[in-house]
Amino acid sequence: MATTYEIPTEQWAQVIEQTGSTVYKKIPVQTPGPDEVLVHVKYSGVCHTDLHARNGDWPLTRKTPLVGGHEGAGVVVAVGALVNDIKVGELAGIKWLNGSCLNCSFCQSADESLCQDALLSGYTVDGTFQEYAIAKAAHVARIPDGTDLEAVAPVLCAGITVYKGLKESAARPGQWVAIVGAGGGLGSMAIQYARAMGLRVLAIDGGEEKGRSCAQLGAEVYVDYTTSTDLVADVKRATPDGLGPHAVLLLAVQEKPFQQAAEYVRSRGSVVCIGLPAGAYLKAPVFDFVARMVSIKGSYVGGRQDTREALDFFTRGLVKVPSKTVGLSQLGEVYEMMAQGKVVGRYVVDTSR
Amino acid sequence: MATTYEIPTEQWAQVIEQTGSTVYKKIPVQTPGPDEVLVHVKYSGVCHTDLHARNGDWPLTRKTPLVGGHEGAGVVVAVGALVNDIKVGELAGIKWLNGSCLNCSFCQSADESLCQDALLSGYTVDGTFQEYAIAKAAHVARIPDGTDLEAVAPVLCAGITVYKGLKESAARPGQWVAIVGAGGGLGSMAIQYARAMGLRVLAIDGGEEKGRSCAQLGAEVYVDYTTSTDLVADVKRATPDGLGPHAVLLLAVQEKPFQQAAEYVRSRGSVVCIGLPAGAYLKAPVFDFVARMVSIKGSYVGGRQDTREALDFFTRGLVKVPSKTVGLSQLGEVYEMMAQGKVVGRYVVDTSR
Amino acid sequence: MATTYEIPTEQWAQVIEQTGSTVYKKIPVQTPGPDEVLVHVKYSGVCHTDLHARNGDWPLTRKTPLVGGHEGAGVVVAVGALVNDIKVGELAGIKWLNGSCLNCSFCQSADESLCQDALLSGYTVDGTFQEYAIAKAAHVARIPDGTDLEAVAPVLCAGITVYKGLKESAARPGQWVAIVGAGGGLGSMAIQYARAMGLRVLAIDGGEEKGRSCAQLGAEVYVDYTTSTDLVADVKRATPDGLGPHAVLLLAVQEKPFQQAAEYVRSRGSVVCIGLPAGAYLKAPVFDFVARMVSIKGSYVGGRQDTREALDFFTRGLVKVPSKTVGLSQLGEVYEMMAQGKVVGRYVVDTSR
Amino acid sequence: MATTYEIPTEQWAQVIEQTGSTVYKKIPVQTPGPDEVLVHVKYSGVCHTDLHARNGDWPLTRKTPLVGGHEGAGVVVAVGALVNDIKVGELAGIKWLNGSCLNCSFCQSADESLCQDALLSGYTVDGTFQEYAIAKAAHVARIPDGTDLEAVAPVLCAGITVYKGLKESAARPGQWVAIVGAGGGLGSMAIQYARAMGLRVLAIDGGEEKGRSCAQLGAEVYVDYTTSTDLVADVKRATPDGLGPHAVLLLAVQEKPFQQAAEYVRSRGSVVCIGLPAGAYLKAPVFDFVARMVSIKGSYVGGRQDTREALDFFTRGLVKVPSKTVGLSQLGEVYEMMAQGKVVGRYVVDTSR
Repeated sequence: MATTYEIPTEQWAQVIEQTGSTVYKKIPVQTPGPDEVLVHVKYSGVCHTDLHARNGDWPLTRKTPLVGGHEGAGVVVAVGALVNDIKVGELAGIKWLNGSCLNCSFCQSADESLCQDALLSGYTVDGTFQEYAIAKAAHVARIPDGTDLEAVAPVLCAGITVYKGLKESAARPGQWVAIVGAGGGLGSMAIQYARAMGLRVLAIDGGEEKGRSCAQLGAEVYVDYTTSTDLVADVKRATPDGLGPHAVLLLAVQEKPFQQAAEYVRSRGSVVCIGLPAGAYLKAPVFDFVARMVSIKGSYVGGRQDTREALDFFTRGLVKVPSKTVGLSQLGEVYEMMAQGKVVGRYVVDTSR
Repeated sequence: MATTYEIPTEQWAQVIEQTGSTVYKKIPVQTPGPDEVLVHVKYSGVCHTDLHARNGDWPLTRKTPLVGGHEGAGVVVAVGALVNDIKVGELAGIKWLNGSCLNCSFCQSADESLCQDALLSGYTVDGTFQEYAIAKAAHVARIPDGTDLEAVAPVLCAGITVYKGLKESAARPGQWVAIVGAGGGLGSMAIQYARAMGLRVLAIDGGEEKGRSCAQLGAEVYVDYTTSTDLVADVKRATPDGLGPHAVLLLAVQEKPFQQAAEYVRSRGSVVCIGLPAGAYLKAPVFDFVARMVSIKGSYVGGRQDTREALDFFTRGLVKVPSKTVGLSQLGEVYEMMAQGKVVGRYVVDTSR
Repeated sequence: MATTYEIPTEQWAQVIEQTGSTVYKKIPVQTPGPDEVLVHVKYSGVCHTDLHARNGDWPLTRKTPLVGGHEGAGVVVAVGALVNDIKVGELAGIKWLNGSCLNCSFCQSADESLCQDALLSGYTVDGTFQEYAIAKAAHVARIPDGTDLEAVAPVLCAGITVYKGLKESAARPGQWVAIVGAGGGLGSMAIQYARAMGLRVLAIDGGEEKGRSCAQLGAEVYVDYTTSTDLVADVKRATPDGLGPHAVLLLAVQEKPFQQAAEYVRSRGSVVCIGLPAGAYLKAPVFDFVARMVSIKGSYVGGRQDTREALDFFTRGLVKVPSKTVGLSQLGEVYEMMAQGKVVGRYVVDTSR
Repeated sequence: MATTYEIPTEQWAQVIEQTGSTVYKKIPVQTPGPDEVLVHVKYSGVCHTDLHARNGDWPLTRKTPLVGGHEGAGVVVAVGALVNDIKVGELAGIKWLNGSCLNCSFCQSADESLCQDALLSGYTVDGTFQEYAIAKAAHVARIPDGTDLEAVAPVLCAGITVYKGLKESAARPGQWVAIVGAGGGLGSMAIQYARAMGLRVLAIDGGEEKGRSCAQLGAEVYVDYTTSTDLVADVKRATPDGLGPHAVLLLAVQEKPFQQAAEYVRSRGSVVCIGLPAGAYLKAPVFDFVARMVSIKGSYVGGRQDTREALDFFTRGLVKVPSKTVGLSQLGEVYEMMAQGKVVGRYVVDTSR
């Protein structure tokens, strides 16, 4: 009764052959190993990480040549001999964490994103900017039947990452979280996840238009850094008791926003850093940080259980992702816009064109 | 049946009349308010904080003139009209947190050290470098009958602080904690608390003599920063699986040790910062910090429950404090040695001379 | 500028002079001690506990004669000499926990409801079924200016208690909580708190009308125990993955519902017991309980921080309490209906009539 | 360079062919599947669970015919094609949890013992009462080179289980844990683990000899239930502040000890139930349980990370297991003694005779 698929031997892909550019070309379709699945990727989100990978920005060695992409939503078309918990025909997502050893102390403690042998989609193994991509069955995200694959793609990295960051913040329902960069693509998802988790959102970004969009998504307060003359004071004042938000989600870690966050976060609160800018540094004055018992936490991508939970909020309709779709062949243009800082929201590529 | 004490009207004290020096002189004995107690301080530890207070190093306003000191062990000799849970004749300790509002959200959540109306002994109110000192009854540490007051004095700040830091580290029994500055006064207490809490200690300090002393107190490994050519690698290698310690206790927060700690701490581990150096900054590269999900936590002094617990380890004989006792009249000389970095271990002053 | 109030010397009260009945009569107005406040109670909720107190059901000694009541909302009309954090004219609530020592290990750990010297309103001290009642300033609930006192009264015990139970359940946003007795007064508040905390609600009660009311308040699923032939199976089936709810809130602890809850709760889940039925026993089979690592937790009333949080959800408009108001003089009739099990929702008494 | 082993085709085993008895006979040696290993079991501990399995006591279907045993320590002699993180020649332990799906929400949350597809050694799959046994590579315990296999065998179930129970208790270093049945085999391990975790031990058992043995292992207090006339009062009194232990580890869950534990445990404390007696019930009065916010937790076997940690305490020399070794051929006699309640400490079988 299991559906079978005709799998071509060749397919279209965007390949990084040289650092700094991609080539749209035909490459062979791979065969999954015994513990792997082959996913017919229908849509893939485009993340800043992909641009970093293409440009070789990070102090982490990557595969060459490389097919980038790590937000791929599609259909399982082949499974390895040992795979028995996902079937051909089921929907699946390929995410940044393509696989991990499942046996080190991190994997055994549900922190598989910290596994030292982790495989990273679109970085150490080929990713989702191709029609057919491979992932370890244990790590492939299960997507419920009937899900809109175009809409869910950006959840597979951006959504999981902001959800994980909110979990790491330890903010409890009824408490305040400030989201720095709330008006962007990650930010808009973060606002919605935060609301769904019972948190109160204080959005921080620049410009009136972003303020309106944050309010529509559920932010109760908006602080505009382009007009605020004392951001720290304004953020604190915006919480009812004037003590500042219980947590801060820093969606782009830069020095000034980081220092400000460490100052306006409530005593005992946490500043959660997301995003991996090459070469950036955290810097904060020790005195206030210690005396107020502030925590600063790095939050990376989510693990498998986090993925399950983040997708569940999406499939319940609580998180909508503002995105634009273009053909896979147009990926280069998307990178161009990203490099120029012109991308608001998320781009998704359709692998069929 | 309650013992009564003859309380003099005048007493000897060390008074900061001008920033940068103290005067040993006679001053009046105060009368406790309705929710306060008067403690006949027998011994008081001398903390770096006291030197900071004398020198006006911190961005925090203090009382003037001021009697410093916040590690005072003595006997309750008078109690206010509303005090019914501690009696004249009982032993008590006066600590940094002299009082707090007991009613703000921090106090209500057992985080009274974060109370914005906290009274600080030897800083915003007179402290323990006098024979008779006052504290809020709710905050005075209960010391069991028969305790050696000379020995317990340094526990009242140094001991509680390192114990609190170890609690904040979230390291669990069987896990490794690196203690930076393990050979000093705070460090020697931290090693002992860590051992009593079932933790494994990796001591970091400089010189062979400190190495021997750390080993005697229970450190399993010693890394000497004066001879290590790659401290980060050496610390990681010193843990059995090479992944580094689960937590780091930074007893003096300076830029280089801090950056190193953020690098050698195990992924998902925490770097706990203790100590309030004026003007110092934390600085760490974002990439590694985020990708490894490291936490950096400021840990200030303990609250009342922490105090109870820290004292309990002491009275069980699990923590011994290396200290030297001099007369209160010699406090100036102790400060002199501190300023020159010549103090190893803890000085205690005997208020009777 | 502080408002002053004319405080009468006599007032109307409902007094338990003999176990099993109350007398509506005039009694003197008390004067607050130095750490107390006098509250002009405008409205007071009526709780099952009050009936237990009147009837002497519990193995806990109570004051005699006694003014019952512990959900009193009103205005502060006098404060003791030492009270400086609440002022005459401010709104305040008197709750079950009238006062506590603030100094035992429970009070110091924000668990003041476990204080062995706790004063209980309407049980060990006079409560809120009178026009002017006394409470310790430290424990009186702060109610924001402009709050509807009639509406907020039942939150002061029922609301705080269900909110506390939900916190104790450790269920996280996105997880399922089953509420047993969801259609009653406590249940309807529990559904709303759970929703506001990002939880998914599986309501359990009897009858179609209750089902409709639960759905309106936000329950996603309703299981009717009057029609279910296999409640355990039905509850499990009602969660998307068939593994049962992550937590169960048992609003009335009786033997059969308790056993069922221990069976249908998800492995690693918790069954939170609320309610203090005289003489009831928990009973559950050991094998399944151990092999599935189920937790059973007793949850009593909230502390001061819990109160602050529970009220905050109310003042944000997220929790509405279905109640009926009658005059304080009619309290006896309310008890009569309660004893006959005829009360759905909450009764509130207006002390002015 | 990898060692190779000559693996026989036949081996000695104890086989349950009929409920209630075992037959010592030769059976074929199995070949490991692609994700499995074959372990040459040198020693295997004998657990009460094995007796329950032989006798068919539990409401859980088991394999027939069955080789029992789930505390097997030995050497890996063959690995499946996909196994790359454990090698032939390395030491390994086979435990109760022989395998799990690694992909359900429990497995993904480091709770693999709750996996609904778990394979159980000596219950749903053949266990360690044979010379060569099979287990999933992901679940086999890694035992450091040089470990005494005879000594470590009982740690693989008994040790892990009590360690897990202590973790679940949430007791922190410096707090008190009461161990009920402290004088038995599990109890003696529990005392040592508790001490190594910085806990203070209050041992409960019957008879002077057990008292002496508990004291030697590190229990600070012993309460003898055969001479105590008020066990609840005696246990509470034995803690310094009279409030009772913070946690209770119930090594054999029976009705009376359970009820007592729920009464003497400190308010907010937890009673951890270990052991799976067929048909037993928990029973406790609701009132006290709720008003004191007591938690009752079922604790089953540990997961892979727990195993790693429990073994680490053992290999550090902090836990010694009192055991007697007999030949595998004598297993029937051990069961006989167990059934008669004559076994103190742990029996280990040597599979070579």
